[in-house]
Amino acid sequence: MATTTRRADAQRNIAAILTAAAECLSRNPAASTSEIAKAAGVGRVTLYGHFPSRAELVDAVFVQAIATGEETLGQVDLTGEPRAALARLIESSWQLVDQFRSLLIAAEEALPPGRVRELHADPMARVERLLERGRSEGAFRTDLPTSWLVSIMHNVMHGAASDILAGRISSADAAPYITATLLAAYTPPGERVPD
Amino acid sequence: MATTTRRADAQRNIAAILTAAAECLSRNPAASTSEIAKAAGVGRVTLYGHFPSRAELVDAVFVQAIATGEETLGQVDLTGEPRAALARLIESSWQLVDQFRSLLIAAEEALPPGRVRELHADPMARVERLLERGRSEGAFRTDLPTSWLVSIMHNVMHGAASDILAGRISSADAAPYITATLLAAYTPPGERVPD
Repeated sequence: MATTTRRADAQRNIAAILTAAAECLSRNPAASTSEIAKAAGVGRVTLYGHFPSRAELVDAVFVQAIATGEETLGQVDLTGEPRAALARLIESSWQLVDQFRSLLIAAEEALPPGRVRELHADPMARVERLLERGRSEGAFRTDLPTSWLVSIMHNVMHGAASDILAGRISSADAAPYITATLLAAYTPPGERVPD
Repeated sequence: MATTTRRADAQRNIAAILTAAAECLSRNPAASTSEIAKAAGVGRVTLYGHFPSRAELVDAVFVQAIATGEETLGQVDLTGEPRAALARLIESSWQLVDQFRSLLIAAEEALPPGRVRELHADPMARVERLLERGRSEGAFRTDLPTSWLVSIMHNVMHGAASDILAGRISSADAAPYITATLLAAYTPPGERVPD
């Protein structure tokens, strides 16, 4: 019984820490573990018991954000004309990147190089499938590898998140800019860029 | 006389540290200050006397790399047809990013968010001037701000450096991929993407 209670306490603490970390890192990508422990209503020793380093905590929060995002992206209609489907996917993806942009910066700072991208495996696989279909239907260029086209989307979107944090563009402008840029970048050579 | 000697010694040490740091960080973006001090033939105390933190040393090496790059980029012919001029500028810029890609990763890891981009002010201003000319001549799109088009180039190139480090693309493929992508991304809506 005591073990069950301790396990329930631990799960409650982990949930509280993850929720508090998501909130704190969304306000400030440099939020400290002390700040997060305080917001979660737990001691620092408890926090470090569950997440031995700030990086492990940021990683866990990011994994959770990606999982939340996947639920949203799974509902996007990817059927029909590939360019229109891509525009819908970009719009939804961007809303997520925008919502989590402070957390994204925190993750890029705290996690080893490549880890942020590794955690995007599922959303990137979805983009890849749509690009492959669009390529086979002649809507997207085939002179560059699909994996490169997926990288471009990742880099342009995440670059836009930095542009917003630095005050270079507004959050409202970003979605149309990203869509216009990627639809042009994916147009087959010799074809017209969509208006 | 003693002061002059000490100053000359200091300058020699700084030069040796910067050269060693550039070499070490080009082999390994995570190179430590002890490793760099050893390669420079100076003690760690001497290194920290000149560069109080690893970040300050990485920053100084990066500033030097950008200055070297600016000499090369200043020689690129940016006259004539804007798309051809941009292709030449991309080619030269990419050679530099590729040459310094390990250092770039070191800088992105060690320096505060936005600092790497801030240090690119001069190369980015050059891109901006060429894009502005191309826009006024109808070669590049005007429905998106020039500053956004410059950001795209920065993000696509630096993303390619990460793609190479992660083994996703080869160094030889990167330049044509980047050029094809950016020329398409910059094409005015309704116009054909260059072949």
